[in-house]
Amino acid sequence: MSSNQKFGAGIWHFATYVDRYATDGYGPPRTLIEMIDLAGQVHDLSVVDINYPFADSSLSLDDVEAALKRNNLSVIGITPEIYTRKFAKGAFTNPDPGIRRLAYELINDAADVVRRFGASYVKLWPGQDGWDYPFQVDHRALWNASVDGIAELAAENADLKFVIEYKPREPRVHMSYDSVARTLLAIEKIGLPNVGILLDFGHSLYGGESPADAAQLAIDYGRLFGMDVNDNFRGWDDDLIAGSVHPIELFEFFYTLRKHDWHGVWQLDQFPFREDAVEAANSAIGFLKTIERALDKLDFDAMRAAQERHDAVTALGLAREALFTSYRAD
Amino acid sequence: MSSNQKFGAGIWHFATYVDRYATDGYGPPRTLIEMIDLAGQVHDLSVVDINYPFADSSLSLDDVEAALKRNNLSVIGITPEIYTRKFAKGAFTNPDPGIRRLAYELINDAADVVRRFGASYVKLWPGQDGWDYPFQVDHRALWNASVDGIAELAAENADLKFVIEYKPREPRVHMSYDSVARTLLAIEKIGLPNVGILLDFGHSLYGGESPADAAQLAIDYGRLFGMDVNDNFRGWDDDLIAGSVHPIELFEFFYTLRKHDWHGVWQLDQFPFREDAVEAANSAIGFLKTIERALDKLDFDAMRAAQERHDAVTALGLAREALFTSYRAD
Amino acid sequence: MSSNQKFGAGIWHFATYVDRYATDGYGPPRTLIEMIDLAGQVHDLSVVDINYPFADSSLSLDDVEAALKRNNLSVIGITPEIYTRKFAKGAFTNPDPGIRRLAYELINDAADVVRRFGASYVKLWPGQDGWDYPFQVDHRALWNASVDGIAELAAENADLKFVIEYKPREPRVHMSYDSVARTLLAIEKIGLPNVGILLDFGHSLYGGESPADAAQLAIDYGRLFGMDVNDNFRGWDDDLIAGSVHPIELFEFFYTLRKHDWHGVWQLDQFPFREDAVEAANSAIGFLKTIERALDKLDFDAMRAAQERHDAVTALGLAREALFTSYRAD
Amino acid sequence: MSSNQKFGAGIWHFATYVDRYATDGYGPPRTLIEMIDLAGQVHDLSVVDINYPFADSSLSLDDVEAALKRNNLSVIGITPEIYTRKFAKGAFTNPDPGIRRLAYELINDAADVVRRFGASYVKLWPGQDGWDYPFQVDHRALWNASVDGIAELAAENADLKFVIEYKPREPRVHMSYDSVARTLLAIEKIGLPNVGILLDFGHSLYGGESPADAAQLAIDYGRLFGMDVNDNFRGWDDDLIAGSVHPIELFEFFYTLRKHDWHGVWQLDQFPFREDAVEAANSAIGFLKTIERALDKLDFDAMRAAQERHDAVTALGLAREALFTSYRAD
Repeated sequence: MSSNQKFGAGIWHFATYVDRYATDGYGPPRTLIEMIDLAGQVHDLSVVDINYPFADSSLSLDDVEAALKRNNLSVIGITPEIYTRKFAKGAFTNPDPGIRRLAYELINDAADVVRRFGASYVKLWPGQDGWDYPFQVDHRALWNASVDGIAELAAENADLKFVIEYKPREPRVHMSYDSVARTLLAIEKIGLPNVGILLDFGHSLYGGESPADAAQLAIDYGRLFGMDVNDNFRGWDDDLIAGSVHPIELFEFFYTLRKHDWHGVWQLDQFPFREDAVEAANSAIGFLKTIERALDKLDFDAMRAAQERHDAVTALGLAREALFTSYRAD
Repeated sequence: MSSNQKFGAGIWHFATYVDRYATDGYGPPRTLIEMIDLAGQVHDLSVVDINYPFADSSLSLDDVEAALKRNNLSVIGITPEIYTRKFAKGAFTNPDPGIRRLAYELINDAADVVRRFGASYVKLWPGQDGWDYPFQVDHRALWNASVDGIAELAAENADLKFVIEYKPREPRVHMSYDSVARTLLAIEKIGLPNVGILLDFGHSLYGGESPADAAQLAIDYGRLFGMDVNDNFRGWDDDLIAGSVHPIELFEFFYTLRKHDWHGVWQLDQFPFREDAVEAANSAIGFLKTIERALDKLDFDAMRAAQERHDAVTALGLAREALFTSYRAD
Repeated sequence: MSSNQKFGAGIWHFATYVDRYATDGYGPPRTLIEMIDLAGQVHDLSVVDINYPFADSSLSLDDVEAALKRNNLSVIGITPEIYTRKFAKGAFTNPDPGIRRLAYELINDAADVVRRFGASYVKLWPGQDGWDYPFQVDHRALWNASVDGIAELAAENADLKFVIEYKPREPRVHMSYDSVARTLLAIEKIGLPNVGILLDFGHSLYGGESPADAAQLAIDYGRLFGMDVNDNFRGWDDDLIAGSVHPIELFEFFYTLRKHDWHGVWQLDQFPFREDAVEAANSAIGFLKTIERALDKLDFDAMRAAQERHDAVTALGLAREALFTSYRAD
Repeated sequence: MSSNQKFGAGIWHFATYVDRYATDGYGPPRTLIEMIDLAGQVHDLSVVDINYPFADSSLSLDDVEAALKRNNLSVIGITPEIYTRKFAKGAFTNPDPGIRRLAYELINDAADVVRRFGASYVKLWPGQDGWDYPFQVDHRALWNASVDGIAELAAENADLKFVIEYKPREPRVHMSYDSVARTLLAIEKIGLPNVGILLDFGHSLYGGESPADAAQLAIDYGRLFGMDVNDNFRGWDDDLIAGSVHPIELFEFFYTLRKHDWHGVWQLDQFPFREDAVEAANSAIGFLKTIERALDKLDFDAMRAAQERHDAVTALGLAREALFTSYRAD
């Protein structure tokens, strides 16, 4: 049986990176067009999430569309960059109302790009909204601003979906939207149908959640609008190749999606600092196909029965049998 | 100025403990009466939280009341022991409906003890409700059972308060009620006025929360019904002496309570495995009084102004100046 | 090809447990003979490590030997219980010289049991040697006592091997022998040929090490005298079923052993609190056999070549191909 | 009593930063001369550690010297940048021998700058030497290269000191020189008198060490050549203001230095991403002076006596009494 699953990636998967030590970058800068052309080399990749503004300010929407088209890629989401220098102290929660306004405007511009590309959502990752030190912020004011900023945008752009990608920390020492439960509290308070969650497997993992449990909770609230995967060592958002460290919990995560007929795109959010970007994507998607085959093979009824008894040994045995026999070198 | 603050402790602070290695215990077992008499030796302790069933099954309510009275102690809460052998696979979420029924009955019995002592609440700490392994449980079923079990009790005992003490893990590898946000999601779903949170400072800390932020959120939902303090190294529920590791965040936690005129008891939840229990309690309360004096001294207006700017350096300076000048050897 | 690998387990795998909450235990107590009979039911288990003094003080060495014999088990090591009540503040480092003497005597008694059973080593796990609080101990004095205590025993029992099982923490908040490197520093200082390391995969993992790297280092110092495996979530010594969370790093660990022709026993150190002990052992050994087959299949030359280039994608692909095709339901 | 203590800082404390999200930086780039002029504004700062090559390639040694002189600053160490793009896969351990050679040459150039400025040491922080993925490297080869590279440099530059700054991780997922014990193993193997440790308080803290214990161990091996302080939340190298989170352990760290008459410079290694660099340095040094006064006040004999008994409550009380009464607004 051939795969019917759609795969995607954040376009930044194909960028080069800087950090606070390698300030000259882990490679020469790449243009957005170069990134798209690299994405096009990955087997089975069909959609991308693109940062906005584009890495190259001179680039027109038509240029980008053309590059996507020749690589058979479409756009699933647009990620406004509300975490660059001017937003260093927050986008929605910035103490300066002028900066909050800039964030609002940037996200509205990104919303227009979503419309232009027929994408699925505006992705909000408020990485600078949070705090670093004890006593630094008034936690009520900070949280209210986090919620209100998104509420306003969602209300004014009722034709679009907004997805919130929560994360425990980085670049702030603590992010406002830090967990699935906290994000759902916000979404419940906002009370609009067009705000949901983009669940990043790695963020969930290193935030101390079980990603499968987090996905279940988001599904139960009707708010799992998107997802992406990667891996890490549970202490930081390492954005490693999916399945390279936690294949079993990755399998459980996708088991949860399959069980509830969640049919969205399986996306990658990896940062191959020192690896070839195309190879890293192929490696991940190759393993995701192993998981897809394992889901086809898994005895769901037997799994349900074991889970009804909380029978870990039997459940683990069923998962192992399906997963460790489904690899195929493509 | 003498302290007006009421201090309390879980009576287990005065027990001896076992763990999986020192199975013969860190000291000879103590009767509940002995624990109460030790609690009575602590300066400024006025209330206790008592486990139920009592450590000695032969003890009558009158016996306990008499011991409390002669030590000038009253009861703030009763903690039903829904985490012993028979509940090893969960109380509210146990796969066996007979065990779930036992939990229900035990908690109802504890509710009667709350009434008898005129205590403030039944404390629910569902330490065995959760999971250990990937694939072990159906996360939807587990969470629903976690919520429904408490909803039923709260509805049937509308004259009483129930407080949920969340905790990331231990004894389960992952507990259902793992964070402030998740617990508030449950409480919102239950929708009854008599269910709230008992916020344990240490659980919040090692769960990756800022305890001050967690307290703020619980206050904003009107659900901060109780609290207790201790300390740890952010990796486990060490239940060390309050303020021994994180004095500044402890100060920020109490700053948040003071700012909102939260006037409940300041309780201890410490496990002095190898220390003298009375000395450990005195050490903690001594430091809590330092914090109380520091709150009297802190410039709240200046702190608010610094926080409006997210000005960490100024805020930290204000906190330091108040805290590091308020110690007094009593 | 049938397995030539010997498998073992700590006999405590077959005990029941207490912790600070389920003080009545996760099941009725078991006698040592019952544990041995359970161990005998595990497929392919041939050696055990036994705590001393025996769980039942009335038991003679002959009784134990007979039980082992009828279950086709032999003894690999004896673990003196230097972590019970009287050693709550340390064995080698206890502030009371009388207690240090008791530890010395107990370990010497255990050494005699090693001789009696023809076992391979005395296993030292100084779980109570360490500290809980800042300022609690003089770190020089504590470390010197940790080292000297073992040096004395090793010098006086030159006919026997002593293995040190390091662990980051629990039951102490911080253990003296906390890591592979620290333990090697001690062993170098002791300078005797009969002191080595028993490397616990899970301790290494949650201590922030790579278990494969730790094994390599111990091998390079000629000190890898024993090992055991289990799994956890990197935050605590959960002692879960081996391979249930980190199959790939478990594979890398055994790859390191195979590469250096390390031919010792593959042991389990699991604590199946809520699981059937025999099933939990069979589940683990089943997976260890998958790993054994994967090692037979792995292309070692290609792996070496990839590692010479630090080529993570290729190395991961080789490991996946071998591991995810080697499962067999036995 | 006025302070006799010398204070220092890494000159990068006064830089602006980039990370993988705020790729446009947390502020406009600063020249080295600007950084030095900012350092000159900090009260009581007298020495700096400078990265090499200089941030501005056009700058001569004379230019730098002049800027230092007019700010009353001298140089304690030079930090060769062996962690930029070309060293992304390691300096000492790079798979490419040409890159290893470049690292060797760069460090030799830095050694000449040390000589030129009469500084105390070449600081080696091999941040890119390590690994990211399971199976990525041959751990023996990697470690040997880590050790041999430094051994060669130290042998050839016997007139200079080399200090190794260990760190658990970042930018690599795991760094070779990850802990005090591992670094001492290397230094013992190198066997030269001019290789020591620069102990970063924050690295020790988030690596799961007690910084006081780590300092003690380095002192006991005669290898504590330098130190710097900052703070974090034990999960990452946040490089926050010293004492902002862990004042008690910071006090214990300096207690250990004072006890052994360690008379080096107290340095800062902070990254004030969003704070004013001068204020952040003043805030830290202000608190270090509080600690200095607290050390003058602490009853060392009583502390020794408490530690001999492992008496945590008394020891904590002594530390609190000294620390929480020694603040002074300067």
